[in-house]
Amino acid sequence: MNVEIYMQELGQAARLASRAIARANTREKNAALQAIYQALQQHQDKVLSANAQDMANGRQNGLDAALLDRLELTPSRFAGMLEGLEQVIALTDPIGVMTDLAYRPSGIQVGKMRVPLGVIGIIYESRPNVTLEAAALCLKSGNATILRGGSEAIHSNQAIADCIQQGLIAANLPASVVQVVNTTDRAAVGQLIAMPDYVDVIVPRGGKGLIERISRDARVPVIKHLDGNCHVFIEREADIHKALTIAFNAKTHRYGVCNAMETLLIDAPIAAHVLPKLAELYASKQVELRACERTRAIIDAQAATEQDWYEEYLAPILAIKVVDDLDAAIEHINQYSSHHTEAIITENYSKARRFLAEVDSSSVMVNASTRFADGFEYGLGAEIGISTDKIHARGPVGLEGLTSQKWIVLGDGHIRQ
Amino acid sequence: MNVEIYMQELGQAARLASRAIARANTREKNAALQAIYQALQQHQDKVLSANAQDMANGRQNGLDAALLDRLELTPSRFAGMLEGLEQVIALTDPIGVMTDLAYRPSGIQVGKMRVPLGVIGIIYESRPNVTLEAAALCLKSGNATILRGGSEAIHSNQAIADCIQQGLIAANLPASVVQVVNTTDRAAVGQLIAMPDYVDVIVPRGGKGLIERISRDARVPVIKHLDGNCHVFIEREADIHKALTIAFNAKTHRYGVCNAMETLLIDAPIAAHVLPKLAELYASKQVELRACERTRAIIDAQAATEQDWYEEYLAPILAIKVVDDLDAAIEHINQYSSHHTEAIITENYSKARRFLAEVDSSSVMVNASTRFADGFEYGLGAEIGISTDKIHARGPVGLEGLTSQKWIVLGDGHIRQ
Repeated sequence: MNVEIYMQELGQAARLASRAIARANTREKNAALQAIYQALQQHQDKVLSANAQDMANGRQNGLDAALLDRLELTPSRFAGMLEGLEQVIALTDPIGVMTDLAYRPSGIQVGKMRVPLGVIGIIYESRPNVTLEAAALCLKSGNATILRGGSEAIHSNQAIADCIQQGLIAANLPASVVQVVNTTDRAAVGQLIAMPDYVDVIVPRGGKGLIERISRDARVPVIKHLDGNCHVFIEREADIHKALTIAFNAKTHRYGVCNAMETLLIDAPIAAHVLPKLAELYASKQVELRACERTRAIIDAQAATEQDWYEEYLAPILAIKVVDDLDAAIEHINQYSSHHTEAIITENYSKARRFLAEVDSSSVMVNASTRFADGFEYGLGAEIGISTDKIHARGPVGLEGLTSQKWIVLGDGHIRQ
Repeated sequence: MNVEIYMQELGQAARLASRAIARANTREKNAALQAIYQALQQHQDKVLSANAQDMANGRQNGLDAALLDRLELTPSRFAGMLEGLEQVIALTDPIGVMTDLAYRPSGIQVGKMRVPLGVIGIIYESRPNVTLEAAALCLKSGNATILRGGSEAIHSNQAIADCIQQGLIAANLPASVVQVVNTTDRAAVGQLIAMPDYVDVIVPRGGKGLIERISRDARVPVIKHLDGNCHVFIEREADIHKALTIAFNAKTHRYGVCNAMETLLIDAPIAAHVLPKLAELYASKQVELRACERTRAIIDAQAATEQDWYEEYLAPILAIKVVDDLDAAIEHINQYSSHHTEAIITENYSKARRFLAEVDSSSVMVNASTRFADGFEYGLGAEIGISTDKIHARGPVGLEGLTSQKWIVLGDGHIRQ
């Protein structure tokens, strides 16, 4: 198989199919999603046995336990996939929405209409449920998709793709609205990210290494999610109860997630009062503390290195720093943060406003846990990822992030003078 | 001079300055623009004599008349620049605007805040007025700018930049909010488009060759404007008077602009009736017609080649094609268009709606001239360019296209359950 030609064929088919799915109305798209639901229900055994084959191969190839766990589809995970699909069916269709149709002095009426992006390439690692989730979100937003999963999940992904394509055909839509790359050749990724004629945007989902590689080599725009080095700043006018609750939740609710707090900043005048209480809370969860010298003068902690301020631990480890004031906190965050999510705890109106305005991150919060930075919590219904970019989409990306807006002009024979 | 180090220094300075300008409020930004206005007024002679030097060098280097014309700054063009600056001062500041602050079931209140992109790199050719126009739009939208103009305009650009920096200093803002690359070394462009740590987006303004080269090599997102192969489709239920007026205006109002019509499509049932009238109108302006065989059976025209359907003539030349119906018109446009601007002329409600929904271009119009596709006509106040991309900004890009939105979350001690 010539990978270059194969990928070009997928690309051409996707471009053609993208016109059909862009034209489909909400009823037609939901009917397709419903038919996909039924095909999956009907072929659950096929999908699970394809997954069993991937699992067996994975064990043979010595995949580690964490990877095998992410790869596995159990009946209950399968049910969860179907539940996610139902949620996508229930989402409001963003396509065709017209806004701001205002008259201009020339007499024309000008506004915007929301439209699909076209063809979206998804590149992801082991979890096979991404195949369905990503395909469903792209379909609902009127886009064609080319999915490239990990080679370790190829049988699972192909079985899920078969069900998706059956559903599309049952709903009288082209099967190539959703295509799964059917080769484990790594050159396929290189091709997928370098076909601007056929692919409008790439969404990589996986480790930082994968995403950095793709961003570097892509010839089309990439909606990327790098790391989440999130901060909580306990300001001197904080309500101490709120501060303790949020600082504890943001660190210990889950460790391996991108919206967990990784560095705690504390305002100097309240450090001696608050740090011992925090240390006690974190000790109850065996959270390792790495701190600046001013913190270490108050509580027991390892000495933090410069590198710690940049670190996304994804583990029960927390960096702590005493800062002189709000300015120092904002400066530290804007310098070291990965611009994902930051929170201030304060009762001071003007300082809350300054923090919201001046912190340059995709989510900025007042008196709330960083753990809320999530598409479901924000009301997007589902998310295709969290963008750490500023261009196009920032923060959790839902259906709207998979769309664009075109201008529409309504006239009655108007000409330019 | 080591260009790589020089550009890194510009980048670092821009990144630092971007924080200051992002924090500046509307009053401060307008005061800076006002101070720039005064500096330019005061130093008009210096700018014009720097321009005279560029013109003399240009003549010596054998620049053609069109390039020299674009390079020249006359007192009246200088006044036009200042007028444009006043318009930017009058624009509404998009930064800090908060929208959609809605409560979620968890109790947090979630919305968006409009924020600057950060540092914008502008790469442009001879016209020195772009230096002021681009700098002013970026400043008003809270961004720092690195400007890289053509080597033929370097003295003019530097003289304008001096005035801009004087204005910034007078308004207590860092001079490095606006920096002009002070070397004609071509390696500077290569550096500017490959510093993702310091530059958030590149806006190239110039010929298609320049833009294609930059898009290919850039390591940061590019807001690009390629060609404008615009279509007008006269549908069988068109009001013939409107059709003739618009088809004439869209082609002959100005030839060298991206929103001029380049191909006219005409619905078969009315071709024999309408084409002779159109031919007469175009003959009055010596517009050369290149047409399909069905057209040539009705009026005199050269035979169009396949290439003509792709062509952006930017000249008194028009391609004409008879199509069977609305579907054929949409298909032709989606296949051959550069996705810039297309118009349908019709009195039929359902067909107008289908054209608006199904034509995949940045501006889609009903009963209006394609010549309206323009930031001023759309009410953006000014435009930094017209994007033919789908990601981030599509169509005319004004202040809002130079911004992004971050999420804001307001809580009262809320934690994730």
